[in-house]
Amino acid sequence: MSAAPSVSNSITVRLTLPARATAVSELTGVIEKGGGLVTGLDVTASGSDRLRVDVTAAARDTDHADALVEAMRGVHGVEIGKVSDRTFLAHLGGKLKIESKVPIRNRDDLSLIYTPGVARVCLAIAENPADARRLTIKRNTVAVVTDGSAVLGLGNIGPLAALPVMEGTAALFKRFADIDAFPICLDTQDTEEIIRTVKAISPVFAGINLEDISAPRCFEIEARLREELDIPVFHDDQHGTAIVTLAALRNALRVVGKELSECRVVMSGAGAAGTAILKLLLKAGATDVVVADQFGVLHADREDIASGQHPALAWSAANTNHRGVTGSLKDAIAGADVFVGVSAPGILTGDDIATMNDGAIVFAMANPEPEVDPIAAAQHAAVVATGRSDFANQINNVLVFPGVFRGLLDAASKSIDEDVMLAAAKALSEVVHPEELNPAYIIPSVFHPDVSKVVAAAVKAAVLGTTPETVPLRRMAEEPELIG
Amino acid sequence: MSAAPSVSNSITVRLTLPARATAVSELTGVIEKGGGLVTGLDVTASGSDRLRVDVTAAARDTDHADALVEAMRGVHGVEIGKVSDRTFLAHLGGKLKIESKVPIRNRDDLSLIYTPGVARVCLAIAENPADARRLTIKRNTVAVVTDGSAVLGLGNIGPLAALPVMEGTAALFKRFADIDAFPICLDTQDTEEIIRTVKAISPVFAGINLEDISAPRCFEIEARLREELDIPVFHDDQHGTAIVTLAALRNALRVVGKELSECRVVMSGAGAAGTAILKLLLKAGATDVVVADQFGVLHADREDIASGQHPALAWSAANTNHRGVTGSLKDAIAGADVFVGVSAPGILTGDDIATMNDGAIVFAMANPEPEVDPIAAAQHAAVVATGRSDFANQINNVLVFPGVFRGLLDAASKSIDEDVMLAAAKALSEVVHPEELNPAYIIPSVFHPDVSKVVAAAVKAAVLGTTPETVPLRRMAEEPELIG
Repeated sequence: MSAAPSVSNSITVRLTLPARATAVSELTGVIEKGGGLVTGLDVTASGSDRLRVDVTAAARDTDHADALVEAMRGVHGVEIGKVSDRTFLAHLGGKLKIESKVPIRNRDDLSLIYTPGVARVCLAIAENPADARRLTIKRNTVAVVTDGSAVLGLGNIGPLAALPVMEGTAALFKRFADIDAFPICLDTQDTEEIIRTVKAISPVFAGINLEDISAPRCFEIEARLREELDIPVFHDDQHGTAIVTLAALRNALRVVGKELSECRVVMSGAGAAGTAILKLLLKAGATDVVVADQFGVLHADREDIASGQHPALAWSAANTNHRGVTGSLKDAIAGADVFVGVSAPGILTGDDIATMNDGAIVFAMANPEPEVDPIAAAQHAAVVATGRSDFANQINNVLVFPGVFRGLLDAASKSIDEDVMLAAAKALSEVVHPEELNPAYIIPSVFHPDVSKVVAAAVKAAVLGTTPETVPLRRMAEEPELIG
Repeated sequence: MSAAPSVSNSITVRLTLPARATAVSELTGVIEKGGGLVTGLDVTASGSDRLRVDVTAAARDTDHADALVEAMRGVHGVEIGKVSDRTFLAHLGGKLKIESKVPIRNRDDLSLIYTPGVARVCLAIAENPADARRLTIKRNTVAVVTDGSAVLGLGNIGPLAALPVMEGTAALFKRFADIDAFPICLDTQDTEEIIRTVKAISPVFAGINLEDISAPRCFEIEARLREELDIPVFHDDQHGTAIVTLAALRNALRVVGKELSECRVVMSGAGAAGTAILKLLLKAGATDVVVADQFGVLHADREDIASGQHPALAWSAANTNHRGVTGSLKDAIAGADVFVGVSAPGILTGDDIATMNDGAIVFAMANPEPEVDPIAAAQHAAVVATGRSDFANQINNVLVFPGVFRGLLDAASKSIDEDVMLAAAKALSEVVHPEELNPAYIIPSVFHPDVSKVVAAAVKAAVLGTTPETVPLRRMAEEPELIG
């Protein structure tokens, strides 16, 4: 499955051309023939014999972009100038800024917000630490913490190279939930050191969002921090993924008219995301789950699990597979109602999906290449979802973490538990109105304007034990224009 | 010396009054009689028999503010409503916000700044870590780090209560040097733990500003971080104070027509600030310095110093006091040209200053109460400076740290040394034009519009070994309006 040209691989090429009538169409012709997509073309200077042109084209990947430049070079008389890359341009200087909320115009302002005035505010907090949520940035500030060990699909690229992702997460926190989030990229991958460091910097923050930390260290780090801190600790790769998966699954089950408690669920992937999804599915009422990893179906007698060296796998084995399934993922999937994949590309075929039960639900969320080609899967399944933005039903964590933290901060929550996560999943699924629900729309767009408000209200109510405030829900058709 | 009413102790009182002709003047009368300063008065509602009034008044301190409210209560027929405190109002919700620099309007934007586009940026940095200064927030981001152990004059109030000060510092970084600074308040006061933590979080930052960490731990923390990090580490209480002191002293010496190398300098205070000032004065050419602390003049034979338990004191004793002075500060100060105090309030009198040499320079920088009453000192000294904002010649670190870091960041500096600090002090002193120089103007206002630019240019040039760019200097008379 080859990717389509994308704005994330978009280049702008400045070049000059002979001023012959066909020059521009020759140029766009070679780009289109080369599989590129022309998204913009400006003649920026013109003379009697030459034109200067800026042409922007989307490519499939970096190599393809290079190939397009080479193709342009083949146009008779062209001279290629500067080639710039829209993605890199968007990142120049980083994606965040820190601003003062108070004016500092004169001595009076300075006396209020710095010495001597600030001393009284400090003393008030020293006397009553809870006042920090009123008089400092704490109440709206979240740390986005990574050690760079499992960044996107890129693996262990380290803290500095992870920073663009963490900045992006922080930007999304602001965009979707008005939360001030700051990236903390740790120059250590030692579990104890990470725990110590996050504890040490915790006073400024009202919540910790762990991100892109590899399993199994992430389990220990999260569990220990939850125990030792008095602010909520959320691991987006685990809990964000689990919540959005459960929300989508609730709606997929409504589409096919099944109950989770009566479904056979087969999962592929027993890492951070897989384990968290499993736990939340069980909490939500799933009774028949079989999990497979790259070595096959998990069961207590499997040699590596029986050895006791993998506590997370052992837990999963002990809490699933009551029918005693053995063998491979392909063996397990026959007759299943639901497949949830957070593992590896292309491990199943359409024929495998054909062995599932009627009204099959397939969530193939490996990124960027799903466990099964979604087009092939859709030949046999009733509902198909992926992590990709170029298919219907994108299962995307951006639907979850902003709203969850908004709710936690609004409730001044000291923790987060599975009941809160269930409430978030339920609220997210209900953003899709019954009249909107269909096999191609089981989960709202990340730009649906009500998502984070609805999730936040549900989370806040779950924390405080109250009834969620009603958020008037807009339908997709009523959404504001999305193209900026 | 009792403080004057200040905006930092300003209250706004909402009250109602009988609508008699003299009611408002009775109200302002009791405030003024009580030593308060009415800075604002609004009639916010009026009826046939009563007025509603919001009155804002500056008090000397919190108790005085309470006394003023009581005095207002004594006005016949008054009913006091809500009393609000301008300083606390200015701090509600904290003083910083984090914003996205990139628009996130639609799927295209998301693809550029988050997945999948961001992956290419991550890979570029993984391949060439230096690219992080181009493609992330690193190049303009500074950590303001404290453990809350020595906050202002308040002592060890802990990390959470220190946060308002660190937010203020970050706000000043933005206001005066367009730097993105983030407060890191550490929940540990263990030297090794602080060092480990700052190292662990360092990838995101291009500089570390240590603040309000008590001596002697601050020396070890700073020295070790400088050794182990590849970004500059600056301890504002030490180096910021030393630079602004040296800058002011350069100009004070111009006023009295003396050379530093020929002056007898006496210092009071051998903590963080004192030690740093001492080192920079020696580097700048001082040859005759005598330092005293609360136990008297430092010399190698003093019992506590000879014991070897105070390496910082021992260093100071070994590098000062070549004339073998013993005894108290008062003994040492007789005949001195320069007094520099960073110690304790009211330890000297005007009579002590009278024993100094002709053309004496007195920097009494203890806060909020100087080592000697500046009015008494001015009877005998040629130049007097303090840390207070209500006397001429305020020695204020805000003149230094924004410009120093601007220069360090612009030069992508990996460190900071004493040559750079000397360059900063020289540049700061030269902001005062020869025609402006006089005993009451040896250091510019923090709102002088060119300070941070001039300091930054000098620091950048010192780091890179080039000639500073010329910054066209405005004179105070040309400054824009300061009252906002």
